[in-house]
Amino acid sequence: MKILVLNCGSSSVKYKLIESDSKKVLAEGGVEKIGLPDSFLKFKRPDGSKEIITVDMPTAKEAVKNVLNILTDPKEGVIKSFDEIEAVGHRVVHGMEYFNKSVLITPEVIERVKECYPVAPLHNPANVTGIEAVSSLMPNVPQVAVFDTAFHQTMPAEAYMYALPYEAYEKYGVRRYGFHGTSHRYVSRRACEFLGLPYEKQRIITCHIGNGASITAIQDGKSVDTSMGLTPTEGLMMGTRVGDVDPGAIVYMMECEGLDAAGVSKLINKRSGVAGVTEISSDMRDIEAAVENGNERAKLALDMYEYRILKYIGAYTAVLGGVDVIVFTGGVGENQTGTRERICKKLEYMGVTFNAEANKTRGEEIEISGADSKVHVVVIPTDEEMMIAEDTAAIVK
Amino acid sequence: MKILVLNCGSSSVKYKLIESDSKKVLAEGGVEKIGLPDSFLKFKRPDGSKEIITVDMPTAKEAVKNVLNILTDPKEGVIKSFDEIEAVGHRVVHGMEYFNKSVLITPEVIERVKECYPVAPLHNPANVTGIEAVSSLMPNVPQVAVFDTAFHQTMPAEAYMYALPYEAYEKYGVRRYGFHGTSHRYVSRRACEFLGLPYEKQRIITCHIGNGASITAIQDGKSVDTSMGLTPTEGLMMGTRVGDVDPGAIVYMMECEGLDAAGVSKLINKRSGVAGVTEISSDMRDIEAAVENGNERAKLALDMYEYRILKYIGAYTAVLGGVDVIVFTGGVGENQTGTRERICKKLEYMGVTFNAEANKTRGEEIEISGADSKVHVVVIPTDEEMMIAEDTAAIVK
Repeated sequence: MKILVLNCGSSSVKYKLIESDSKKVLAEGGVEKIGLPDSFLKFKRPDGSKEIITVDMPTAKEAVKNVLNILTDPKEGVIKSFDEIEAVGHRVVHGMEYFNKSVLITPEVIERVKECYPVAPLHNPANVTGIEAVSSLMPNVPQVAVFDTAFHQTMPAEAYMYALPYEAYEKYGVRRYGFHGTSHRYVSRRACEFLGLPYEKQRIITCHIGNGASITAIQDGKSVDTSMGLTPTEGLMMGTRVGDVDPGAIVYMMECEGLDAAGVSKLINKRSGVAGVTEISSDMRDIEAAVENGNERAKLALDMYEYRILKYIGAYTAVLGGVDVIVFTGGVGENQTGTRERICKKLEYMGVTFNAEANKTRGEEIEISGADSKVHVVVIPTDEEMMIAEDTAAIVK
Repeated sequence: MKILVLNCGSSSVKYKLIESDSKKVLAEGGVEKIGLPDSFLKFKRPDGSKEIITVDMPTAKEAVKNVLNILTDPKEGVIKSFDEIEAVGHRVVHGMEYFNKSVLITPEVIERVKECYPVAPLHNPANVTGIEAVSSLMPNVPQVAVFDTAFHQTMPAEAYMYALPYEAYEKYGVRRYGFHGTSHRYVSRRACEFLGLPYEKQRIITCHIGNGASITAIQDGKSVDTSMGLTPTEGLMMGTRVGDVDPGAIVYMMECEGLDAAGVSKLINKRSGVAGVTEISSDMRDIEAAVENGNERAKLALDMYEYRILKYIGAYTAVLGGVDVIVFTGGVGENQTGTRERICKKLEYMGVTFNAEANKTRGEEIEISGADSKVHVVVIPTDEEMMIAEDTAAIVK
C-alpha cells in the first residue's frame, strides 16, 4: 500500500512516500521557506539521486501540490498519478486528551485538533493546513492523524498532573501530555523485536535525545511517564530549550529582564539549552568538537546534558520498579558514542555492563550492553514516518 | 555554653535558648504577628510549662527585646541576665555563593547577606533585622550566621546550573542553591551516628518532607544535588508550592490568566501544591484524613506527593551510583507512617526491605528497613536549632 506521510510545519513540509507492506521508502524530501520568495523543494529517490527545485510556494497548499507534482512527474517522479497514493498519514503534534491513538481524519477530528490550538499554537494549525491542502487536492484519499501525544495517554494521574491549582487542569487542560510519542512507541517496540523479548512484559526506558529530547518510562507496552509536559519545553536539556528549571527562577528572570509571556517563551525556548549555556551552538556535534578543543563551557553543557539523562533514567527505574531495556535514539542517541558510554558507565550500580566495541557503531541497531548486563542497553534508530505509515495502513485497511 | 538561636521572619521570630555542651533546651518559643495590634509571645520551659503574653511589638527589635526580657524575668525566666547568653546563632536563608559554611557575623557578612536580597526578598531582610536588633540590645555578644544554602555549596556545576542563558548565572546569580541545608546536614550526620556508620563514606538520600519539602543526595558527607533551586519553589510537591512544573505551562498560565511576575509568584507559591490540587488543605494530616473518607482529589494529591519523592530517590540513587542510607525527616517524614511505607515498598527493586512494626513509631529515631535490607532506611527527627547552636558554639570558641 502506497502511503504519503506528511509532517506539515508553519514554514516547511516534510514528506515520505512509503510502500507500507514492504516498508520501502519510494521517495522523500521536504519543502522549506513556504511563503518566502526563495521557497524550494527537495526530492530524493531510493537510489540516492536528488533534486532541488526552486518554486514559488506562498502557502502550504502549493507546497503539498508541488510534492504531488514531483512524485508524479513523468520524467523525475516515482509514481504515475495521484491515484496510486492510497492514503495520507499526517503527523499531528497535540491531541490533548481527545486522542489516545491514531485516527481516520473526519471533520469532527479536525475540529478536535483545532480545539488543541491554544496548547500548540505553532504546530497544530500547520498540521490542519496540511490536512486541508490534501483534502482539496485529493478529496477521495483517506487521511489519518498520528499524534505525538497519543502514546502517552496511558500515564497515570500522579505522573501527568502538575501541582498547579486543579482548575488549571479543568479549565485550561494543563497537564503533562508528552511528545515524541510515535518515536518512543516505535523504538521501544523495535527494541523488543531486535532483542527477541515480549514487548508487553518489559520495563523499558526510551531516551529520544537530539536537538529536541525526551525520555519515557514504558511498562508492559504502555507509557507511564515522560519528561516533556504540556509543552515540549520540559525535561531534558535541549538545543535551545531550557528543560527542567525552578519555576521561581522564571519569576526572577521576569523581574530581572522585565519579561512578559512572550519574553519568557523566547527565553525558555530559543535562548536557553545547549546554545544558551555554551554561546557556541545548539548542535551537540559542535559541542563535542568544542570539548575536544578544551572549551570549558562546552564541557559544562555536555556534563549537564548527560547528567539530566542519568537522573531521568534513575527516576524512571524507580517508577518502573527496575528496568529491563534502555533504548537510545535520536540524533545524539544514535550517533554520540561518548555520551552513551559515559551514561552506561554511571549505570553500573544497577548492573549495566558496557560493550565498548559494539558502542563504536553509529546510526544502526546494536546492543551496547555486555552479555552479562542485567539490563539490555540498545541503540535503535527511530523511524517516525514508518510508524505513521504503518498506523495509516492499518486504519485504512 | 548558653546560646540563643533565632529564626527571624518578616512577621515572626522563633527562638530557642540552648546549653550547647549538654545539648539541653533551656527555653523556647516564638513571637507572632509582629507589627499587628494583636502581637504575642509564646514561652515554653523545659518542664513543659508555657506562657502566652500579649504585648505590643511594632518591629522585630521589640520582639527580640521581649524574648530577652522573658528569658531574664526574675519570676518567669530561666536565666538571670543577658550576660549569661554567650552567643546568638541566626538562621539566615540565602547565602548565594558567598557562604559555604556558618560564619561569625561582621559588618562585611551583613553586607553580603544584603547582596542576597534580590533572590530572597522576604527572608534575608528579616534575618538582617534580627541580627541588627541583637546588635543594638546586646552589642558585645558574638553572633553567628548559619545559612540554609551553605551545605549545598559542594554541588558540582552540572547539578547546580540551569540550562538558561549563561548570563543569567553571571549577571543575576541564577543557579540551584538549595535550602533546608542545616536540616539535611543534621539528619544525615545523625543517621550515621545512629546506625554506627562512618559519615564520610556513605551515599545518603535525605528526604526533608513536610509543608516545605526538599530532598538531597549526599556523597561522603557532601551535598551533591538537591531538589530546591534558586528559590524554595522547585522540586517536590509542597503545601502550597508547585514544585517541578513545565516552564512552558507557566507561560501558558500567564496567557490564560493574564499574570505578571507577581501573579506567577502567587500562583506557584500560594495557590498550588497540596492545597491547590485538593482545594481542601495544605496540611498533609488533613489530606490523609480526607483520603480515609474517600475523597478522590485528596488521594490524587497524596499519590502525586509520594510519586515525586519516589522519582527523586530514584534520580539521586543514579547520581550517587547506588545508595546506602535513606533518611526521612520533617513533619510528614517523621510522622506519616503510610507515606513511608508506600515509598519503601516501591523501593524493593533496589533491595529495600521494610519493617512494618518499627514503622509504627512516630517522631523518634528509628530504622524502618528490615535487617536484610540492602539500604538502611531511617527516620531522624530534624533539629535545625541544635545544629545552629553547635555551629555557633564551635565558631565562638
